[in-house]
Amino acid sequence: MGMVGGGIDSFIGEVHRMAARLDNQIELICGALSSTEERSLQSGKILGLNPERIYRSYHEMINKEVTANYIPSMAFVSIVTPNHLHYQPARLALESGFHVMVDKPLTHSVEEAYNLRQVVKATGKLFGITYTYAGYPMVKEARYLISNDTFGKIRKVNVDYPQGWLTRNIESEKQKQASWRVDPAKSGKGGAMGDIGTHVENIIHYTTGLEIEELCADLSSRYNRKLDDDASILLRFTNGASGSVRASQVLSGEENSLKISVYGENGSLEWSHTDPNSLILKWIDKPTQVYKAGAEKSYLSRAAKNNMRLPSGHPEGFIEAFANIYRNFAYAIKSVEAGKSPDLENFDFPGIEDGLRGMVFIETVVASSNAGCKWKKFEIK
Amino acid sequence: MGMVGGGIDSFIGEVHRMAARLDNQIELICGALSSTEERSLQSGKILGLNPERIYRSYHEMINKEVTANYIPSMAFVSIVTPNHLHYQPARLALESGFHVMVDKPLTHSVEEAYNLRQVVKATGKLFGITYTYAGYPMVKEARYLISNDTFGKIRKVNVDYPQGWLTRNIESEKQKQASWRVDPAKSGKGGAMGDIGTHVENIIHYTTGLEIEELCADLSSRYNRKLDDDASILLRFTNGASGSVRASQVLSGEENSLKISVYGENGSLEWSHTDPNSLILKWIDKPTQVYKAGAEKSYLSRAAKNNMRLPSGHPEGFIEAFANIYRNFAYAIKSVEAGKSPDLENFDFPGIEDGLRGMVFIETVVASSNAGCKWKKFEIK
Amino acid sequence: MGMVGGGIDSFIGEVHRMAARLDNQIELICGALSSTEERSLQSGKILGLNPERIYRSYHEMINKEVTANYIPSMAFVSIVTPNHLHYQPARLALESGFHVMVDKPLTHSVEEAYNLRQVVKATGKLFGITYTYAGYPMVKEARYLISNDTFGKIRKVNVDYPQGWLTRNIESEKQKQASWRVDPAKSGKGGAMGDIGTHVENIIHYTTGLEIEELCADLSSRYNRKLDDDASILLRFTNGASGSVRASQVLSGEENSLKISVYGENGSLEWSHTDPNSLILKWIDKPTQVYKAGAEKSYLSRAAKNNMRLPSGHPEGFIEAFANIYRNFAYAIKSVEAGKSPDLENFDFPGIEDGLRGMVFIETVVASSNAGCKWKKFEIK
Amino acid sequence: MGMVGGGIDSFIGEVHRMAARLDNQIELICGALSSTEERSLQSGKILGLNPERIYRSYHEMINKEVTANYIPSMAFVSIVTPNHLHYQPARLALESGFHVMVDKPLTHSVEEAYNLRQVVKATGKLFGITYTYAGYPMVKEARYLISNDTFGKIRKVNVDYPQGWLTRNIESEKQKQASWRVDPAKSGKGGAMGDIGTHVENIIHYTTGLEIEELCADLSSRYNRKLDDDASILLRFTNGASGSVRASQVLSGEENSLKISVYGENGSLEWSHTDPNSLILKWIDKPTQVYKAGAEKSYLSRAAKNNMRLPSGHPEGFIEAFANIYRNFAYAIKSVEAGKSPDLENFDFPGIEDGLRGMVFIETVVASSNAGCKWKKFEIK
Repeated sequence: MGMVGGGIDSFIGEVHRMAARLDNQIELICGALSSTEERSLQSGKILGLNPERIYRSYHEMINKEVTANYIPSMAFVSIVTPNHLHYQPARLALESGFHVMVDKPLTHSVEEAYNLRQVVKATGKLFGITYTYAGYPMVKEARYLISNDTFGKIRKVNVDYPQGWLTRNIESEKQKQASWRVDPAKSGKGGAMGDIGTHVENIIHYTTGLEIEELCADLSSRYNRKLDDDASILLRFTNGASGSVRASQVLSGEENSLKISVYGENGSLEWSHTDPNSLILKWIDKPTQVYKAGAEKSYLSRAAKNNMRLPSGHPEGFIEAFANIYRNFAYAIKSVEAGKSPDLENFDFPGIEDGLRGMVFIETVVASSNAGCKWKKFEIK
Repeated sequence: MGMVGGGIDSFIGEVHRMAARLDNQIELICGALSSTEERSLQSGKILGLNPERIYRSYHEMINKEVTANYIPSMAFVSIVTPNHLHYQPARLALESGFHVMVDKPLTHSVEEAYNLRQVVKATGKLFGITYTYAGYPMVKEARYLISNDTFGKIRKVNVDYPQGWLTRNIESEKQKQASWRVDPAKSGKGGAMGDIGTHVENIIHYTTGLEIEELCADLSSRYNRKLDDDASILLRFTNGASGSVRASQVLSGEENSLKISVYGENGSLEWSHTDPNSLILKWIDKPTQVYKAGAEKSYLSRAAKNNMRLPSGHPEGFIEAFANIYRNFAYAIKSVEAGKSPDLENFDFPGIEDGLRGMVFIETVVASSNAGCKWKKFEIK
Repeated sequence: MGMVGGGIDSFIGEVHRMAARLDNQIELICGALSSTEERSLQSGKILGLNPERIYRSYHEMINKEVTANYIPSMAFVSIVTPNHLHYQPARLALESGFHVMVDKPLTHSVEEAYNLRQVVKATGKLFGITYTYAGYPMVKEARYLISNDTFGKIRKVNVDYPQGWLTRNIESEKQKQASWRVDPAKSGKGGAMGDIGTHVENIIHYTTGLEIEELCADLSSRYNRKLDDDASILLRFTNGASGSVRASQVLSGEENSLKISVYGENGSLEWSHTDPNSLILKWIDKPTQVYKAGAEKSYLSRAAKNNMRLPSGHPEGFIEAFANIYRNFAYAIKSVEAGKSPDLENFDFPGIEDGLRGMVFIETVVASSNAGCKWKKFEIK
Repeated sequence: MGMVGGGIDSFIGEVHRMAARLDNQIELICGALSSTEERSLQSGKILGLNPERIYRSYHEMINKEVTANYIPSMAFVSIVTPNHLHYQPARLALESGFHVMVDKPLTHSVEEAYNLRQVVKATGKLFGITYTYAGYPMVKEARYLISNDTFGKIRKVNVDYPQGWLTRNIESEKQKQASWRVDPAKSGKGGAMGDIGTHVENIIHYTTGLEIEELCADLSSRYNRKLDDDASILLRFTNGASGSVRASQVLSGEENSLKISVYGENGSLEWSHTDPNSLILKWIDKPTQVYKAGAEKSYLSRAAKNNMRLPSGHPEGFIEAFANIYRNFAYAIKSVEAGKSPDLENFDFPGIEDGLRGMVFIETVVASSNAGCKWKKFEIK
């Protein structure tokens, strides 16, 4: 793969690289790793890239890689820049014949998202987006159980995503991540919503398959931030279920404890990022069950087990979940290049529709809040 | 004490009696224990009451006890009937010179609540209400820490109160508790809101002292219930903090896991009824702390330790929390009867203002939801 | 009941009284509450006893109560003195026609224990001992499940009982509890073994029914204590199973977290005092199950549910477990006095054989350790 | 690196490869991956090795790599064969000038271990052993805190390592892992002791630095296994502390929950593999503290933070801990090859002495148990 963004002082770039590397399916062979030429070169050198394939810009990288006959050739582009720099390189890569993986959220604006969907459809290339939590095997198990009607009709979905890293005004201290996250020119309309709100929307849709009918959002921010750093959101789904979301980056002492609870008529499940290798099933008048990750567990679905590397009691974590997305994307590329359909049931990854849904979520939430916390329809064209 | 309601097939009546009995400060000496004469007599007999002091109605009990010179005399009346039967006996008892303890919510309607406040003021008698969670020592510790500005200005309060006992339509099977809880004639305007919503409002106010400025509620119900069985509520407080509440009785597999998280600018705390003897404090870039209940712990506040009976590692639970309210009420009566001020800092209990606030909460929440989930001011006259 | 020991500055005396009181089956009507006359009288007064029935010694109490025709009469004696003062009052009470409840361990020495067994047999009176953990409903559920062969043949039993209250040399500061616990003249041959070791032996036998064949103990102590404050013990059972025990009172920062794990050929269970209302069942290649206490749970055994007062999610704790022992003892007395057999399957309590087994455990453990940590047979005559 | 063993149907070989790969410091470039020629070739092919560098035996590999001038050259050999096949390839590699990493336990016998130590000393090459748990950052934090006398003199060390995978007689079903683990010809004198007992010994020594003085072990096995599948062990350390170990592979329903508790005079710590990113500190009369992993935490030691990749709340797991050992080994090789001393304080890995200690542990434990569970001195020549 070739990488756009993710220079050596980037947090998420290195996560993408570890994830891509873990399963020996993907090799980083070229990159335009930073917005400044010097840092691009330096980063590529540190990563041990062939000097010829360290580029000063994504244009240069894509244009060169499409024509030069490097072996191995670049099969796909991974885009890990801030949000405002997703659309253009993604579009160029797709139109130049490359598959594309992009960090979430999909784009800077919902318009870009609709346009990108068009490009994906038109080019027919594979497109992935790193909604990390969809890569966790026990989240896949949750999805499997719900889709098999284990709990009866779903009534309620509650999600909490508490973080604390913006509790203080760290952007005033030039903290790199904070600086662009709070800047609309780089992040888009959503602050916390773009960063963690889209993860919430994705895990809800991924596990339950429910469609949001309308929502009512109360966003707020501190320190004269122009974008939200905190949100409480009420949801109504098209099947009649309701839901409630809390997503915040200003909760002192919180780390990154995404938690989802899904309640059906007969039972419920709970998954929390603080114990990602467990899945709790609660029942009316039956003992609670705890499903545990483990490649040897016969009671788990294949969808879950195909995304585990270790036997039970050997914890896999964030990097492994991330790696599942990359590995499955690589499998799909191999299938497609061999003229076969990818096996997306066993080796799935989030795609362009998921990315678009996240962008619509951001914009709907912001619109609801700006209207004084009024119900807004959630509509995807 | 004398008891109104709480016959032998009642759940909460027996809890009140165990709680009153535990600390050897209170003796049940008379009662009008049921709405039917026969069951009143039978219940009184089983409880070993003096047959002369088993009454057929609260009128009879209060009128007789005020004139007869029984020894020991009745010092206060405990009212544990369904909501629609709180106001009249409370009023009669107060006006007859007795102190009063009542189960929550305070009354059937907010009008009754305002009236009762008038009666309490006019008679000068002591008035208590069994918001159980305010009786837990680690909830008192939370209150102490917040009131001492441990966490800086409070920004956010999140509360979850998930239950599952109304998941199925058990009122159709004549389950006694369910039957009156879903009946507006007995419960008032709130279903889950009257039952558990008032606990949520109370624990927020009790621990943080914050005043709700306005709220936006999304209530729903199943099985053609006339009252809510589920709620998601957004809160805004007068100090600028915001909050979010989930309270539901239709979450399959949930039991009774009230949980509150309070976030200040510098740190936060978390208390959960699933582990009531711990209090978790989270900090920005300092280790998380877990405060543990234990009568010998020097680091705990007196307010907490005065409401513990056992050393650390010996769990106290629901009955002990309930008993703290009764015991402290008994202490207050003794002080007052000895002409002294009760020591409400060390031995506090919820009172008439707490009860009134709960009723305003119910009505505001219902009004917001009926208006299509609109923001409504939370106003206490 | 009448109480021997347990004056107002005693920890365990008040626990016994709360436990006895909770379920309205037992009234404290007389006592010889302290070893000093003055404190006995003062304690009795504070507890509101009839002044005539406050005694200066257990002799006086038992002799007087057996002849005077007080109403209500004393049905049983509760003995809550230090260990060296159990045997004499227990014997006198039994021989005077009273039932007896005694705090653990049974006696000061194993010889006294054998003698007391003789007296119990000879008099035919009811005898109880407050092994608290046997009063927990989920411990009763564990016993029920194991006795119904839920897990196959038992292979292994591991128990930890960590405490930290003797971490420092608090007896040098005259801490009352510590002073007698470390004194062989009052405690007997066991220090931590007498205090918490006997609880461990009891919970193993109570839940599994296994008989210890032999054991190998490594005891130690600090601060020139004459009795053990720490033990590690290996166990072999007559059925071929093995086990391991850790019981210590010098583990800094530990509170009172008794935990038992029982492993059968097909599955296992785990109960911990830190979450006493749950029972965890683990299986080979099936999801873990968590049984939750709750009077309404249909899947729990009657033995467990008969010892719960509250629905699920309303935690009961140490006092309630203790109270189960007292209440069941009271039920048994009532049955016996009505000429019926007590229903010990549904309303059980530990008795003289359990007490004796605990004493043999203490002496065997001490003998093994004194012999240089050698295997010793565990033999009850 | 070149790999000996770890063909594609091996569990631990793939773990080593993922771990080696994760941090982009190590590339697998050659291998003798199986004991059968065919599988070696097939495995090498699947792993994408240069066909010339896929070898039929470790002799061939080492001899060839030492003479051929491949670029990149092989810097070290990773040995992931069953225990009986560690010594010979390790010796040959060292004597041929290569650094060596070996899976634990070090060798098949303690004699081999002493010999290997000689070879390491004589050759001066770097030597590592994958005691995985020493790679966990919070285990490193534990070590840092203890070595800085955070808890006062250490009194007690308790470790549990429960597994259940040998609960049934799966070797009779030809399960590959089980078959060699229960075979003395391949495993050596220890069964569970060789597999998980050595991990226990290592984590104790690694975190506390304590030296075992003597031990008393009770080993047992089922199904006529020739090697232990279960152990309870008492420990005495040279500083006067004592300890207790449980390590078993026949505990139904257990997975892999290694847990260590270390008690000092002033406080204690607890680390459990079920929540590897937390470290619990307990204190006498101060709140419990929970240290959380997170690369941004200022309160953590450098030793811990240097072995984390992600910010708090992003769980790292088994593979990352394993990878820390490989990465630090690679750093040390680079330092050494650059003529510098490796920075073993910040980037440590277990070495030959740790491996030897583990072998002495196995043999001492087995000797103690065979002597009827007698105390045996723990002596390293």
